[in-house]
Amino acid sequence: MKALGIGLIGTGYMGKCHALAWNAVKTVFGDVERPKLVHLAEANAELAQSRASEFGFEKATSDWRQLIADPDVDVVSVTTPNQFHAEMAIAALDAGKHVWCEKPMAPAYAEAERMLAAAKNSGKVAILGYNYIQNPLMRHIKTLIGEGAIGAVNHVRVEMDEDYMADAEALFYWKSESVSGSGALDDFAVHPLSMLWFLFGHVEAVITDMVKPYADRPLKDGGRREVENYDAANVLMRLGGGISAVLMANRAAWGRKGRIALQIFGSKGSISFDQERMNEFELYQAEGRGTEQGYRKILAAPAHHPYDRFIPAPGHGLGFNDLKIIECRELIRAISGEPSSTVTFTDGLRIERSVHAMAQSFHERRWIEIAD
Amino acid sequence: MKALGIGLIGTGYMGKCHALAWNAVKTVFGDVERPKLVHLAEANAELAQSRASEFGFEKATSDWRQLIADPDVDVVSVTTPNQFHAEMAIAALDAGKHVWCEKPMAPAYAEAERMLAAAKNSGKVAILGYNYIQNPLMRHIKTLIGEGAIGAVNHVRVEMDEDYMADAEALFYWKSESVSGSGALDDFAVHPLSMLWFLFGHVEAVITDMVKPYADRPLKDGGRREVENYDAANVLMRLGGGISAVLMANRAAWGRKGRIALQIFGSKGSISFDQERMNEFELYQAEGRGTEQGYRKILAAPAHHPYDRFIPAPGHGLGFNDLKIIECRELIRAISGEPSSTVTFTDGLRIERSVHAMAQSFHERRWIEIAD
Amino acid sequence: MKALGIGLIGTGYMGKCHALAWNAVKTVFGDVERPKLVHLAEANAELAQSRASEFGFEKATSDWRQLIADPDVDVVSVTTPNQFHAEMAIAALDAGKHVWCEKPMAPAYAEAERMLAAAKNSGKVAILGYNYIQNPLMRHIKTLIGEGAIGAVNHVRVEMDEDYMADAEALFYWKSESVSGSGALDDFAVHPLSMLWFLFGHVEAVITDMVKPYADRPLKDGGRREVENYDAANVLMRLGGGISAVLMANRAAWGRKGRIALQIFGSKGSISFDQERMNEFELYQAEGRGTEQGYRKILAAPAHHPYDRFIPAPGHGLGFNDLKIIECRELIRAISGEPSSTVTFTDGLRIERSVHAMAQSFHERRWIEIAD
Amino acid sequence: MKALGIGLIGTGYMGKCHALAWNAVKTVFGDVERPKLVHLAEANAELAQSRASEFGFEKATSDWRQLIADPDVDVVSVTTPNQFHAEMAIAALDAGKHVWCEKPMAPAYAEAERMLAAAKNSGKVAILGYNYIQNPLMRHIKTLIGEGAIGAVNHVRVEMDEDYMADAEALFYWKSESVSGSGALDDFAVHPLSMLWFLFGHVEAVITDMVKPYADRPLKDGGRREVENYDAANVLMRLGGGISAVLMANRAAWGRKGRIALQIFGSKGSISFDQERMNEFELYQAEGRGTEQGYRKILAAPAHHPYDRFIPAPGHGLGFNDLKIIECRELIRAISGEPSSTVTFTDGLRIERSVHAMAQSFHERRWIEIAD
Repeated sequence: MKALGIGLIGTGYMGKCHALAWNAVKTVFGDVERPKLVHLAEANAELAQSRASEFGFEKATSDWRQLIADPDVDVVSVTTPNQFHAEMAIAALDAGKHVWCEKPMAPAYAEAERMLAAAKNSGKVAILGYNYIQNPLMRHIKTLIGEGAIGAVNHVRVEMDEDYMADAEALFYWKSESVSGSGALDDFAVHPLSMLWFLFGHVEAVITDMVKPYADRPLKDGGRREVENYDAANVLMRLGGGISAVLMANRAAWGRKGRIALQIFGSKGSISFDQERMNEFELYQAEGRGTEQGYRKILAAPAHHPYDRFIPAPGHGLGFNDLKIIECRELIRAISGEPSSTVTFTDGLRIERSVHAMAQSFHERRWIEIAD
Repeated sequence: MKALGIGLIGTGYMGKCHALAWNAVKTVFGDVERPKLVHLAEANAELAQSRASEFGFEKATSDWRQLIADPDVDVVSVTTPNQFHAEMAIAALDAGKHVWCEKPMAPAYAEAERMLAAAKNSGKVAILGYNYIQNPLMRHIKTLIGEGAIGAVNHVRVEMDEDYMADAEALFYWKSESVSGSGALDDFAVHPLSMLWFLFGHVEAVITDMVKPYADRPLKDGGRREVENYDAANVLMRLGGGISAVLMANRAAWGRKGRIALQIFGSKGSISFDQERMNEFELYQAEGRGTEQGYRKILAAPAHHPYDRFIPAPGHGLGFNDLKIIECRELIRAISGEPSSTVTFTDGLRIERSVHAMAQSFHERRWIEIAD
Repeated sequence: MKALGIGLIGTGYMGKCHALAWNAVKTVFGDVERPKLVHLAEANAELAQSRASEFGFEKATSDWRQLIADPDVDVVSVTTPNQFHAEMAIAALDAGKHVWCEKPMAPAYAEAERMLAAAKNSGKVAILGYNYIQNPLMRHIKTLIGEGAIGAVNHVRVEMDEDYMADAEALFYWKSESVSGSGALDDFAVHPLSMLWFLFGHVEAVITDMVKPYADRPLKDGGRREVENYDAANVLMRLGGGISAVLMANRAAWGRKGRIALQIFGSKGSISFDQERMNEFELYQAEGRGTEQGYRKILAAPAHHPYDRFIPAPGHGLGFNDLKIIECRELIRAISGEPSSTVTFTDGLRIERSVHAMAQSFHERRWIEIAD
Repeated sequence: MKALGIGLIGTGYMGKCHALAWNAVKTVFGDVERPKLVHLAEANAELAQSRASEFGFEKATSDWRQLIADPDVDVVSVTTPNQFHAEMAIAALDAGKHVWCEKPMAPAYAEAERMLAAAKNSGKVAILGYNYIQNPLMRHIKTLIGEGAIGAVNHVRVEMDEDYMADAEALFYWKSESVSGSGALDDFAVHPLSMLWFLFGHVEAVITDMVKPYADRPLKDGGRREVENYDAANVLMRLGGGISAVLMANRAAWGRKGRIALQIFGSKGSISFDQERMNEFELYQAEGRGTEQGYRKILAAPAHHPYDRFIPAPGHGLGFNDLKIIECRELIRAISGEPSSTVTFTDGLRIERSVHAMAQSFHERRWIEIAD
């Protein structure tokens, strides 16, 4: 396969994260072609220039449409704010580019649907940046469940908590506006939902409670403004196969920084994982003598592929950015027609559908069934 | 105050636990009279005799009514199976005895109401054995919340998990019969509810999901019998003051042995606690330099009263049975008319009311409001 | 066996702890006679009286020799400061009493030798209060090692840390005087040494470093006084069977409250334990698939005898004082001629011998071999 | 500053790790020039070619002297086995190149001295790959100590444990030959020593014990061969300022994968850190109310620079390989004459000197003083 030409739109944290992945993927994995970093777009022309230099891209533009028109670009990384995802991804797909778009798809469900339609139309690869599922341990947990290591799963809990909205006296900003969405639910509960989707598939029914820890927040120039969405959401869920689940998401949870705590209970054991300690997980198997049964703390190791492509020794630890490198390679594999594990636009739309059902179940105060 | 004469009905684990407490309370606390262990009742006459000798009681009987008729008995510990609580507690109260009854009050709500009526009628002290709230750390957590150490509480989660029903192939027994109740909810979710009640008071509204991890279980003589109640329950709750809460209870949670994991989020910090490590809790306060903010793991110490009555050195650890000794002293204080902290029959009925509302919300698939 | 008559000398924390054990042992274990709490001695006559009432003893005296002369007393608990152990224990043994003496034996090695001689002479049971080895998990660890669960042990580390001497500006008091001993070494390193003795037997050779974190401490009336002994000690050790070990003891270790952290490495696995979480231990076995190997956190459970005598459910937790109850029953078993597990005066003297060799190795700056 | 031309010798794990760092350093930090990856050397010509392609180097050679002669190369990464370090590093320095050499310097102390002499002679930057000290948290710990956050440090413990030599029945290989060194001491104890050097400077005196967990190991073709060096080493140390320290290193420690557990005790608090959880550390400060004192678990965050250059959100986690990127940037800064934090050859020699003194103290069974 010839080298892929890469275009990157957006140079915030996720832009940098994509750039790091495109720079590293060949060195880490060896089994793909080294991508050519062709074109970088960033609204601010000066910033575009300096970021292109930093990130190693050949050309810079302040007009993302130029990038999409560039015949040397084969794949477009879309890392701009959520409201631009649909327009950019669709334009790229329509121009015959593969797309690697950051999550979530789009604030409006209809736009997400249009994105999927464009992807299908184009025949190109279109995936979303749900990198937590690329953790070698998350993959291994899926393997263990598939092998029956904990029997038939019957109950799951997942908590996603950070504290970037926890300060009651932090200034009001756009994250608290209703136009930006429901709050914790679509702001970041999509991450644990990507895990549930990865491990268990379809969400069948939900009922949600959402809350505002703080009724209003101060404005820069004095006075206060009412908070319009919900910093915390709790959801009762039914997954396929009769699995009951609980999802809790709170972006105002003091002390939690990057917590995604997953507990999975089965008929023969259980598994727990916390993203804040992403290089370990716990496994309980109801086997052997009772006096020695207990949760095993398992450290990430080369045998949990593709950890071995990064480090040949166990217990040394991958970082968050490494997950993006794995995702990048999965994308290249998908483009090459090889088996790969990603969240495609098709998968992503199912995640968004469940988010919308959750919001609806809150507003209507009732269980909502979700068609597959 | 003269020495209290004690009667104990029931000699299973909780009977023993009460006996240990009655034996130890004076030595531990010093500030109460040493109780006189007068009368022990146990259906099996021979066992009654040997247990009286073991537990240090003067008299033994196989007829609990004899114990209640004994004029030397001032307080009756009721530690028999739940179905007998109402009859015994009411008889004791009617006979003018104080009552220390194990939780929960009774399988039927109407019986619990009768128990409370009897208590009110008698003018005697009537409390329930919700010992987890007697943990010095639980009391300290309440103090911290009251002092505003974590600001205004806005979100709470509590998980209660054990695995005594986790083995899918364990024989069917009475715990899986519907006559014994809803399952996890009334079997043991009352414990975390006692904590929520202790810390936050009234539960205003609930919606519940309950599940059967296993549809049926084997019978001793072959064949299988359908499981009639629910080993796991998940509840979305609204507490007073706009606090949102989630309660998860699972008695089929492989690997969990005595987990009651509590997370409390406030506007200035958060607290977490797990009964499996009952001698420590974690406190996060959004104070000071960001580079040093983190959860503080605080070990139980003499300054967390009444830990000091057991051990004068920090970090040495109380045990589960010690909580019963503290509860015992609170009971004696209540009888003496001193301030005390217990779950009275009045409080207990509120806990049971919330459990019944939870079950109802599951069956009717809707939110249920609970009157205070 | 008839009921043992108990005498208790000393009513500080350890006196109370013995009293609690004597009060509870029959209720917990059932299989011993309920002891008769006969006589309590305490230098302060008034205190003696009130403590006798609190602890449940029939008689009180301010003259411990009266207690020893009491024919109703069969066993004497010696819980006074270390400097009185020898005189009291020897007197009790000479009077034909069994002795339960708190650790360590005596500040001077020669006195400890005299204690052992008196014990041998009397033919009575004489044990020391090394209660940490009575933890059901410590016993289970010994069983696991004996079964070869971690293969042949080759390396051991033990850390004992508290912070009661950590405050540099705390007033000078007797613990910092050289007459009270070497400091951390004999003040509390005897505890981890009792564990090493329990698990691995004889200490063959040692070399020690000792340090004074603080050169002097303030005096109450102004000025400062030089600290005369060592708040921290580190020891390289060789145990039998070629096991290398490291002992670290620090009574000025800020943040540690009751840490006794033990790590045991063998040819097939390893074990770790920390007294601050005395109801769990960790076991690693190099078995099965590499992708699932890890330390198993095992919670104390009924199958770890005699936890079951206290609580029939796993994960609920024993407390520090419960260990004394187990020790008490072992003492009664020893008196009854039944197999028991305690630290006898013979064992205790070996522990003290190793402590003295450690101090010597520091002063002479060389390895010291210790004869068995 | 113009772009540096990079030469890389060796393409094992460390070669890859250097390559990843050279590829990423500009994207991560922005404030350095993007290096030119010029020349890669690898004994196997075919492998050299494919690795050059994978790692993004322009030229490949099987003769490392060609690389050193390349005028386009400004900096040489030496990542070959230890025995080649001296020859290559010296040749590179003599040719006027800067050198980034993997640790340790060389098996023989005299060679390490020659390396330092060559570095001094050349006037070029010469550093060693001790990347653990580049962890933002390790830096922050140093800052905290410098600020007096835990007062005057008086006691330190460090444990380095892995289990790659723990399998007693693994085949004999070169790591067990005496020509490869003392074993655990020089094989990997240099890592914790780099931390001690980084935090506390000079080691003044040592006494060491070393042990062979296994006397012999099987040979591939049958029979067994005696193990010639020591898989575990324990060292009592005195650091400057009267700090006592204990170093424990064990490469046969079942269950430990990348443990470097550091405990630092001071007059006002303490710090602990474990490399297996490299994104967190614990801090205890003896401040405030006793009832809330405890170890604070602090997660790596943007305020712990340069974490922020990788990720703008706290608690998301760096990986082991990221430390090499930080080291790479420090090297570039040193070359640019800017302040930087690295282990220079001068520093490295001091580390090796202490290792040699440790080995000597074992063989001579006595304390060895080390001149600064």
